[in-house]
Amino acid sequence: MKNISILGSTGSIGTQALDVIRANPNLYRVNALTAQNNADLLIKQALEFKPSMVVITCEDHYQKVKNALPFIEVLCGEDALIAVVELPQTDFVLTAIMGAVGLKPTIAAIIAKKDIGLANKETLVVAGEMVMQLAKKNGVKIIPVDSEHSAIFQCLVGEEQNPIEKIYLTASGGPFRGKNVDFLATVTKKEALKHPNWVMGAKITIDSASLMNKGLEAIEAKWLFDLATNQIEVVVHPQSIIHSIVQFTDGSMKAQMGVPDMKLPIHYALAYPKRVKSDFERFNFLKYPAFTFSEADTKSFRNLELAFIAMEKGGNLPCILNAANEIVVEAFLQDKIGFLQMSDVIEECMGTMQFIAQPTLNNYLETDAHTRIFANQLVTKQN
Amino acid sequence: MKNISILGSTGSIGTQALDVIRANPNLYRVNALTAQNNADLLIKQALEFKPSMVVITCEDHYQKVKNALPFIEVLCGEDALIAVVELPQTDFVLTAIMGAVGLKPTIAAIIAKKDIGLANKETLVVAGEMVMQLAKKNGVKIIPVDSEHSAIFQCLVGEEQNPIEKIYLTASGGPFRGKNVDFLATVTKKEALKHPNWVMGAKITIDSASLMNKGLEAIEAKWLFDLATNQIEVVVHPQSIIHSIVQFTDGSMKAQMGVPDMKLPIHYALAYPKRVKSDFERFNFLKYPAFTFSEADTKSFRNLELAFIAMEKGGNLPCILNAANEIVVEAFLQDKIGFLQMSDVIEECMGTMQFIAQPTLNNYLETDAHTRIFANQLVTKQN
Repeated sequence: MKNISILGSTGSIGTQALDVIRANPNLYRVNALTAQNNADLLIKQALEFKPSMVVITCEDHYQKVKNALPFIEVLCGEDALIAVVELPQTDFVLTAIMGAVGLKPTIAAIIAKKDIGLANKETLVVAGEMVMQLAKKNGVKIIPVDSEHSAIFQCLVGEEQNPIEKIYLTASGGPFRGKNVDFLATVTKKEALKHPNWVMGAKITIDSASLMNKGLEAIEAKWLFDLATNQIEVVVHPQSIIHSIVQFTDGSMKAQMGVPDMKLPIHYALAYPKRVKSDFERFNFLKYPAFTFSEADTKSFRNLELAFIAMEKGGNLPCILNAANEIVVEAFLQDKIGFLQMSDVIEECMGTMQFIAQPTLNNYLETDAHTRIFANQLVTKQN
Repeated sequence: MKNISILGSTGSIGTQALDVIRANPNLYRVNALTAQNNADLLIKQALEFKPSMVVITCEDHYQKVKNALPFIEVLCGEDALIAVVELPQTDFVLTAIMGAVGLKPTIAAIIAKKDIGLANKETLVVAGEMVMQLAKKNGVKIIPVDSEHSAIFQCLVGEEQNPIEKIYLTASGGPFRGKNVDFLATVTKKEALKHPNWVMGAKITIDSASLMNKGLEAIEAKWLFDLATNQIEVVVHPQSIIHSIVQFTDGSMKAQMGVPDMKLPIHYALAYPKRVKSDFERFNFLKYPAFTFSEADTKSFRNLELAFIAMEKGGNLPCILNAANEIVVEAFLQDKIGFLQMSDVIEECMGTMQFIAQPTLNNYLETDAHTRIFANQLVTKQN
């Protein structure tokens, strides 16, 4: 029986993780659940899964949640996420909250020697070197939940002694694949939120449309798999069946494939190193008679290039990129700026914020906070 | 340093294995080489690689080889293959001879506790159950060299505890993919020998054109990976980039991919469990913008269906199928019968020869010999 705490249980990954847990009651027990705002769903989940602890980070909802769950310990505030990950009976922490806010609880979970199911890519984008070193020092496994990283992780099982030559991260290309800058200048929030293959939250769906998601994934992959920038290549594969590929130094490539369904990498991360039987839809070649591939268009989709620049320069630049991106995506979702202006703001932040080559955790947190302020100023100006 | 004996060093797999060994002189030493007829090439190879023993199975060439290699032990005849595999200093036997003649030396190698690089698929087609049990009993690793089986083997590394749900063997479809029976009735040897993707020997190239090769591979896979007939599916993939696929019980699939080049699985088998850096051509997505997939046409390509029937019924039926096939391919290559008549003869042999549910090794050897006689009679009749 694995005792699991889920940070962000009401989001897309969180709810699907609970689906997996519900289907495997003999394997998993929910130890804690946390949510930011969605008190109603959190209460419903807690009544079903009976965790020992529940956290609602937004304090406005605290009394409501507390009153609804009299037999469960209920906390509120961001610091309460630290209390959740440190619960002694937790074996595994699924970090399914969105954004740089995931960094501190993930670090706390690693220090508490909990294995991590990493669905918060910002943790590694912002502070990958520090987090991976900490995990190594504490003997903690970090099992990726992003479908691309899960694919590479699955391909590397049993290949621990064999160096990676390169990886291919596959990208669907999003709803605007093949479109040029003129088209992108006019796209709406509604169009950007229509992802062709994956059902995900709003932030990651916009990141997929702008290819920033693939850039963040590249940085995440760099740290997860200890790669140099030139060992990471993005290939556009609109069908999203091949989830990513590893090429070894003998020239052989291994790929992980399947129907695009986030439940599969979640299920894998929970069960690892075992695989547990599932009733998920199986892939059928007759439904997908062709897989196609093309280069990513970094001229039209500048976010991808910006992310690779941030990855190559390192230091706090990925942190700047990520913080600026969180602000511009929110601004785009609020119709404050256009699709292409997102890249403008990110680029200006990257060129303006102070570069720190060897940041401490405090440097990261300050960089994150300062970049958000500056990016918000730029958004207001552009508006 | 791995000491390697190659059975069939002058064939397609044998010469490519020597290319790999030549490129890695610090890893591999050639301990013995054998050939059937090609005395000149065998002599040339022996002068370069200086093995301890050389065998020419066709006795007509014995004196020539012996005279050319005064400082090497030279033997002749099929029984000499047994002496080769039993050489105490051999670590690894690459069985690269074609046909059921590979069975006896492979069994002898297993009893002598040598790890096997299996490029002779007939060994498992004819007597898979017996051979795999013997390997298990003797603690011998059987590492497949066929690209499809190497692909599956590579995908299973580190997944030993995780059951296979099914495998997909990919098939190029050969030179006659998409053709109907009327077309197949008229094809010539020359057309059948033009394989679109792989450079291989004549026998296996004809088997690829008739899809018998995929049927034999399915039977080989059944025994190598302990599968039921309904766990093995053939999918036509004309580009031959995905070399085969494993689907696990969680629904996740792993595939091995690369340029179609037999040197890669040979290199893998020699180096296993390590991967050794190679300078082979790397795969490039820009050269292959689409992978396509379709069902195999077992109505036009009856050999594939016959092989699945033999696999399902088991006993000595795969041995009958294989022996009949060896005869008809030879007859087709000698312009004695047409392309479709190959299936007619195989089917008649399968319906006529005595079925033995639990054959002994002698039963297999007798079945093989008797089927060849009967198949030859049928060829003569059809001629």
